[in-house]
Amino acid sequence: MLERNIETFIGCDASYEDADIVIFGAPFDSTTSYRPGTRFGSRAIRHESYGLETYSPYQDKDLTDCSTFDSGDIELSMGSSEMALSQISERTRTILEGGKLPFMVGGEHLVTLGAFREVAAKYPDLHVIHFDAHTDLRDEYLGVQLSHACVIRRCHDIVGDGRIHQFGIRSGDRPEFVWAAQGHTEMHKFNLDGLKETVNALGSTPVYFTIDLDVLDPSIFPGTGTPEAGGIGFMDLINAIILVGGNCNVVGCDVNELSPSYDPSGVSTAVACKVVRELILSLNK
Amino acid sequence: MLERNIETFIGCDASYEDADIVIFGAPFDSTTSYRPGTRFGSRAIRHESYGLETYSPYQDKDLTDCSTFDSGDIELSMGSSEMALSQISERTRTILEGGKLPFMVGGEHLVTLGAFREVAAKYPDLHVIHFDAHTDLRDEYLGVQLSHACVIRRCHDIVGDGRIHQFGIRSGDRPEFVWAAQGHTEMHKFNLDGLKETVNALGSTPVYFTIDLDVLDPSIFPGTGTPEAGGIGFMDLINAIILVGGNCNVVGCDVNELSPSYDPSGVSTAVACKVVRELILSLNK
Amino acid sequence: MLERNIETFIGCDASYEDADIVIFGAPFDSTTSYRPGTRFGSRAIRHESYGLETYSPYQDKDLTDCSTFDSGDIELSMGSSEMALSQISERTRTILEGGKLPFMVGGEHLVTLGAFREVAAKYPDLHVIHFDAHTDLRDEYLGVQLSHACVIRRCHDIVGDGRIHQFGIRSGDRPEFVWAAQGHTEMHKFNLDGLKETVNALGSTPVYFTIDLDVLDPSIFPGTGTPEAGGIGFMDLINAIILVGGNCNVVGCDVNELSPSYDPSGVSTAVACKVVRELILSLNK
Amino acid sequence: MLERNIETFIGCDASYEDADIVIFGAPFDSTTSYRPGTRFGSRAIRHESYGLETYSPYQDKDLTDCSTFDSGDIELSMGSSEMALSQISERTRTILEGGKLPFMVGGEHLVTLGAFREVAAKYPDLHVIHFDAHTDLRDEYLGVQLSHACVIRRCHDIVGDGRIHQFGIRSGDRPEFVWAAQGHTEMHKFNLDGLKETVNALGSTPVYFTIDLDVLDPSIFPGTGTPEAGGIGFMDLINAIILVGGNCNVVGCDVNELSPSYDPSGVSTAVACKVVRELILSLNK
Amino acid sequence: MLERNIETFIGCDASYEDADIVIFGAPFDSTTSYRPGTRFGSRAIRHESYGLETYSPYQDKDLTDCSTFDSGDIELSMGSSEMALSQISERTRTILEGGKLPFMVGGEHLVTLGAFREVAAKYPDLHVIHFDAHTDLRDEYLGVQLSHACVIRRCHDIVGDGRIHQFGIRSGDRPEFVWAAQGHTEMHKFNLDGLKETVNALGSTPVYFTIDLDVLDPSIFPGTGTPEAGGIGFMDLINAIILVGGNCNVVGCDVNELSPSYDPSGVSTAVACKVVRELILSLNK
Amino acid sequence: MLERNIETFIGCDASYEDADIVIFGAPFDSTTSYRPGTRFGSRAIRHESYGLETYSPYQDKDLTDCSTFDSGDIELSMGSSEMALSQISERTRTILEGGKLPFMVGGEHLVTLGAFREVAAKYPDLHVIHFDAHTDLRDEYLGVQLSHACVIRRCHDIVGDGRIHQFGIRSGDRPEFVWAAQGHTEMHKFNLDGLKETVNALGSTPVYFTIDLDVLDPSIFPGTGTPEAGGIGFMDLINAIILVGGNCNVVGCDVNELSPSYDPSGVSTAVACKVVRELILSLNK
Repeated sequence: MLERNIETFIGCDASYEDADIVIFGAPFDSTTSYRPGTRFGSRAIRHESYGLETYSPYQDKDLTDCSTFDSGDIELSMGSSEMALSQISERTRTILEGGKLPFMVGGEHLVTLGAFREVAAKYPDLHVIHFDAHTDLRDEYLGVQLSHACVIRRCHDIVGDGRIHQFGIRSGDRPEFVWAAQGHTEMHKFNLDGLKETVNALGSTPVYFTIDLDVLDPSIFPGTGTPEAGGIGFMDLINAIILVGGNCNVVGCDVNELSPSYDPSGVSTAVACKVVRELILSLNK
Repeated sequence: MLERNIETFIGCDASYEDADIVIFGAPFDSTTSYRPGTRFGSRAIRHESYGLETYSPYQDKDLTDCSTFDSGDIELSMGSSEMALSQISERTRTILEGGKLPFMVGGEHLVTLGAFREVAAKYPDLHVIHFDAHTDLRDEYLGVQLSHACVIRRCHDIVGDGRIHQFGIRSGDRPEFVWAAQGHTEMHKFNLDGLKETVNALGSTPVYFTIDLDVLDPSIFPGTGTPEAGGIGFMDLINAIILVGGNCNVVGCDVNELSPSYDPSGVSTAVACKVVRELILSLNK
Repeated sequence: MLERNIETFIGCDASYEDADIVIFGAPFDSTTSYRPGTRFGSRAIRHESYGLETYSPYQDKDLTDCSTFDSGDIELSMGSSEMALSQISERTRTILEGGKLPFMVGGEHLVTLGAFREVAAKYPDLHVIHFDAHTDLRDEYLGVQLSHACVIRRCHDIVGDGRIHQFGIRSGDRPEFVWAAQGHTEMHKFNLDGLKETVNALGSTPVYFTIDLDVLDPSIFPGTGTPEAGGIGFMDLINAIILVGGNCNVVGCDVNELSPSYDPSGVSTAVACKVVRELILSLNK
Repeated sequence: MLERNIETFIGCDASYEDADIVIFGAPFDSTTSYRPGTRFGSRAIRHESYGLETYSPYQDKDLTDCSTFDSGDIELSMGSSEMALSQISERTRTILEGGKLPFMVGGEHLVTLGAFREVAAKYPDLHVIHFDAHTDLRDEYLGVQLSHACVIRRCHDIVGDGRIHQFGIRSGDRPEFVWAAQGHTEMHKFNLDGLKETVNALGSTPVYFTIDLDVLDPSIFPGTGTPEAGGIGFMDLINAIILVGGNCNVVGCDVNELSPSYDPSGVSTAVACKVVRELILSLNK
Repeated sequence: MLERNIETFIGCDASYEDADIVIFGAPFDSTTSYRPGTRFGSRAIRHESYGLETYSPYQDKDLTDCSTFDSGDIELSMGSSEMALSQISERTRTILEGGKLPFMVGGEHLVTLGAFREVAAKYPDLHVIHFDAHTDLRDEYLGVQLSHACVIRRCHDIVGDGRIHQFGIRSGDRPEFVWAAQGHTEMHKFNLDGLKETVNALGSTPVYFTIDLDVLDPSIFPGTGTPEAGGIGFMDLINAIILVGGNCNVVGCDVNELSPSYDPSGVSTAVACKVVRELILSLNK
Repeated sequence: MLERNIETFIGCDASYEDADIVIFGAPFDSTTSYRPGTRFGSRAIRHESYGLETYSPYQDKDLTDCSTFDSGDIELSMGSSEMALSQISERTRTILEGGKLPFMVGGEHLVTLGAFREVAAKYPDLHVIHFDAHTDLRDEYLGVQLSHACVIRRCHDIVGDGRIHQFGIRSGDRPEFVWAAQGHTEMHKFNLDGLKETVNALGSTPVYFTIDLDVLDPSIFPGTGTPEAGGIGFMDLINAIILVGGNCNVVGCDVNELSPSYDPSGVSTAVACKVVRELILSLNK
């Protein structure tokens, strides 16, 4: 007898009961103002992961030694941000209630809000480590508050000053940089300098780790809606992931903003796959 | 002294006062469920129109003999359908109040609703001639009522039974076809058969003419979100435009669903440019 | 509790027990001499099928009324044609032994041989209806007998003269055309003329139906390894499928030669999805 | 001992002495006003021809039975139209002096002028059969007289009224159509109607046959600088080539305006290859 | 009342009277010998600039605080280099006569000559700072003197030895390197080493600053005609622009050789937009 | 009289007798498990080399001073690895018997085996310098031993322990890394550290130098089947080539795994062309 066709991120085939980490996709990009396409990100990462090895020579670990479950993509309501965020929150809540770590793959960055508000509800002292090229601190964008350009501001609405640690930021309007500098967030411009100190200071505090892949230089990650030259290198990101994943108390995380069709070479998707692999491995201590 | 850079659809450089027709772009695609990108349609049509001749050998008319004004694209609120539709309605109202014909270029098909509700408010006996591959008659789609898949149903909410004449329809779910067949719309499947009779029957009744370019066969128009093989030919469409534009009392119109980046050959955009040219020319009697 | 991610061709979610038809993918293209890429065909058809409606206005039937099971793609041994064909034969045998109809999605055309030899073993009086742009009748190609360019010749090795009915053929070398004309196959050049007569003559004889999608004109199906202008139209193919599927005793079938990456518009994949849908529906009487 | 790498159009490997027809490429596109790229046309046709069969089922002839020589591409002076045209004229003269038929592959349509003036010098009573979407009858374009948009006008400068027979024309500015209608050329709009009469009337008069491939509908030939929907079909063109090549006294010919990079599917190049094959075969009586 | 559609580089909306800097596009690529397409560069930069922030965190300056005017693209005579250069010279002269700084966006590098000869006429002691991968010092190329490959040699014809400072050069034929080493230009190979010394030495001498964007490594700037690996990094270029723009007496400048269609990711265009932004900002002291 | 069209890698036009180095292409990719397309690599390198200068400013050498012969691509039997390897071996043997250095351009990495076994037969004390992102040390892959994923293991079958020096390796499964660490190969992970020591130690020992271009970072070389971020830079590779080519006794070499169609910018092909140029120049002492 034959089995129905199953597709998961490579090496993520634990049973739901055994799994420590539960992956899900949030294929949403309705608020993207410039170039859409991140809705195809999670599917591309899952499908192309079969071109990846499960073994990482960077960490000398193997996905087959971890217990990860891939629950697939949520079918989101395109055109209604609030409905989509509710659907994401619901999936996150289910995973948290099961005592597992939610690992979301976007989609545009707004999807972070759907997961974050559930994780923050469970962990009131939650901090955020945020890798991104963009500030994402606007209070509204084109009249809309639930926008990818506002997502970290919305997270700040929930956790307040001093909880958000931003790295790699190199684009935004002037008022956003001013607002951050007023102490609302801890912003590290251009690169990851200061990450080690932040990680050390956080100790065992619960951390939500959100990676907007456009923090990478577009030379290695062109497949994103708003590429910003001057970004960090691939090994910078991998080392940072190992640092955060291996030393912080990460209780939720996401990887977002892959827009695969802008990169016909497939390199961006391959990079995103490796980021997901290394992040999973780093969380397995 | 030099002039600031102006870009309009080719040959559409009448003064606003003199213009009979006012073009505007509605670059919106937030509710697109399958493949986004129509937000780039109106800009592509404007920019690539400079590769077009202003003269049509089909109608032996020239755009330079017409009085058309291009008011550019509206900056729409991505992620909020209701705000975007309001912005479209406002532009349409301004044009109608100026006694001119609104000619909208999409964007996804949902944008029709923003223009249509203003035109219907001015012309209570308004009929719709609708060219499309898709029924667009769902009452909701993924829980959302303001969706591209529901736009003609929303128009029906306004004008009711017997007013909507659909042509070229070849895709939808079964309940949509059943609903149409119950007399809610006059649906002509697969092609344009019956158009001449419809045009004759309408006489001088005001008509809103909405062209979803995916009514065309994807061999000639691949650059659209949901291509449906088995469509009508280019000359079928041009002849139908000449028939409707030249014989009906068209009081508003739109051309939508070009998604230029799916067609790297540029043929789809060139086709859309010609459709816009022929439609403008047909309206100039 | 969450479920593992499952992906099937849209509407093909019967249980294995209930299923009449079992789909499987054969992602192989090692013998392709010109442009490879059909290995991505079956996956693309499955993934993009979610942009398709389950309802066909052509047949007024719906996939949700059928009982079809999608057993996914076989992991084939790239670089070894004989191993790959064995793996295909094994899957086919399992399906035939279960009393179900094998429905293969390629992959290059050589994969037909793996399925065909099992179906021919079960049905000794098997005939073949073959739609293709190419003769595929070479005895060897570049020194290789197991080649996409030889696949129908290999089928002829099994069933002999008078059993193979070819339609739409418009490319090959002269000796292939001469060989066919000697009575080895019944070849209909350029189009589908004579199909109705063949269908009538076959009556209830068991038929293997193999569709090389390059029989279509490349204007509507550019995404294939060796596009040949002058092909048949989409509606020609759909009507032919309804004719064969609805009137012949089809006991096995395949659809192959989609090479999705050659068509960035996605039209070819969308066409292939519709061909699969219409073929499934035609087989459900 | 090994041989140096030789690349010719498939099946065109006669010795220069034996050859009746001499192919050469004219990779020039400096005057292209809209989208450049035809400079890559001749190389693409040569390289991709190896995906073609030498046998034509349309004519039941084979390139290996003909005597054709491929002398490769001329290295042209980009940016200087007059120098490039001189270089083309020189190659043409060499071929004519050798008593062979010059068969040029473009490049943009301006290259025709370089070959045409040599052929017209040898055959004073030369007529032109011209397939094109565009009139190409402007006296100047953007201030330039040696432009692709003026090439047939320049040919008219040489041969005068009544010698140029245009088919398939569907784009130009109004004065060009008016000028043609004044009797300067015999223009057949939109399609090939009247070709048979023209061929019969020409009898044994020497004919230069110039095919701008954009006469084809862009559904089958998207890879060109200025695609114009509403064109002729592939079989229309093949049949017309067989008619002209088989019945006229063709003393020079060219095939131009393939811009391969606009069509990533490769269909346009494959079509151009077949056009070249069929034209060569039609000239071999 | 509605306004006609205006498109300018983002944040460049000063009145002509108030403007210090006047941007114009020179969409010309007729002499490009390898791969054309830079004619689309200036338009792409203008259109895609709306995806850019007006604020630079590198300089902590904002385009909205500057006075820049965008006079659009010149309509150039494709196929005639001398006519095109004259048209560029005319625009440059108008800007210089208005006491404003001409800021040209190419187009191929030859366009520099059109602007340069006007700036050199006004400033007889003009020096050139030239960033490029290529020497551009040939005296002729394929028999043509007005060629992109000769443009700096043509500038040298005007200003003579010791005035041209080249950086980043890594490709050319041997005689060009030898010629430069004979003291005709000050050539810095491979990178920007020595720029600070050059800037210091120039003091308040008038400088024409020409940036061929292919000086960048193709990993970050693939969208150019002749990509040369081994180039400088994005931050190298930005810092160099700040150094030159902020310390030299720049009296004219250009940014050229973006060929957007070679980079479907859009990264190259985004990089070019940032280069334009940073260069404008650096000139505003 | 005209000459037949010849195409060679630029500057490689020595007579066969005079040549020291003989280039040939091995366009094979049948065993590629992930994304095919390297079959187009050697042709692309040859055709695009005309965009390259023959002069290298890195080595201050010129191809026109070397004696290299380009014998073109072998026509290989797609779908049969053993036949293809035999054909490669035969070409290699011819070159070796002529006392010349075989310089192969792939194709997938498996082609190395065809050349290597001939070179190893001639030079029993042969060592291998292997640049690659991948271990290529599997004993079998998907049941196949003649696979690109096994090629260095197959070379090890011939030469045994201590002869293979691997650099840049960053992907493989765990058992491969373990096997290498057991002393079967000398593996340098992630970069080229230790190359100088290896080169010194090898002295005048005969060396086969195989470069899988995916050793490069995909930011500069995206056009390959399995891109692996975290690779070496272009200048790292060029310097390493100069080191190996200039100091080792290289008796055979290959450059492989360019898959040009994955990189529409052409940068990957341009990089590969430069690698070939620099490697040829480095071998000319």
